[in-house]
Amino acid sequence: MSNAKDLPLLELDGGSVAPCCPPLTERPLDAEEAEAAARMFKALGDPVRLRLFSAVASHEGGEACVCDISDVGVSQPTVSHHLKKLKEAGLLTSERRGTWVYYRVEPSVLAAMGHLLAGAPPAA
Amino acid sequence: MSNAKDLPLLELDGGSVAPCCPPLTERPLDAEEAEAAARMFKALGDPVRLRLFSAVASHEGGEACVCDISDVGVSQPTVSHHLKKLKEAGLLTSERRGTWVYYRVEPSVLAAMGHLLAGAPPAA
Repeated sequence: MSNAKDLPLLELDGGSVAPCCPPLTERPLDAEEAEAAARMFKALGDPVRLRLFSAVASHEGGEACVCDISDVGVSQPTVSHHLKKLKEAGLLTSERRGTWVYYRVEPSVLAAMGHLLAGAPPAA
Repeated sequence: MSNAKDLPLLELDGGSVAPCCPPLTERPLDAEEAEAAARMFKALGDPVRLRLFSAVASHEGGEACVCDISDVGVSQPTVSHHLKKLKEAGLLTSERRGTWVYYRVEPSVLAAMGHLLAGAPPAA
């Protein structure tokens, strides 16, 4: 069910947080780290996709199907397309139950991205 | 010097953290919030740009010029191009001193992005 295979540097360990990269303020990322991290950022770099992601992330129970989150002003096939992209980036996992596919945020990936952005120097 | 004008929803207040949006897990973002946040994520969605950003963010004193961070395997004009994109996205500020332009991470923006990614539900 996990998309960890898409994020070679993210070593999931029993569901615990396993950041792929150090905080951006700690040291320059190397090429491999940047490749993995940029893929996650890119997936959230589209406004519609980001709205859908937040709709899934904030939905009751932490999961949602296309039927739950169709109010962002795009067609259902477009919603499905974006959810697929988020899944490919390792940000969502999915499970088919009956007619619908349910999407769930991958918490360890979100935590890894938060870790990347941690350690910002204090404002001057 | 600030690029806050590029991020209309980010109300800077004396350099303090002023997130443009609630955590992604709190509620679905609206269109305007998603537009502002996606712009920041998109800017970090390129591996070379992300490496350069981390090079600036982790450089001594929290700032760097093109002359400091030319070791990512791309030409200096390409480095300058990417730094300009990061500046346009509001992630970096810049200041010319003599021959060189010095870039500095905008801490409040980085903190806002971290805030967006906070509140991930615990791993199942």
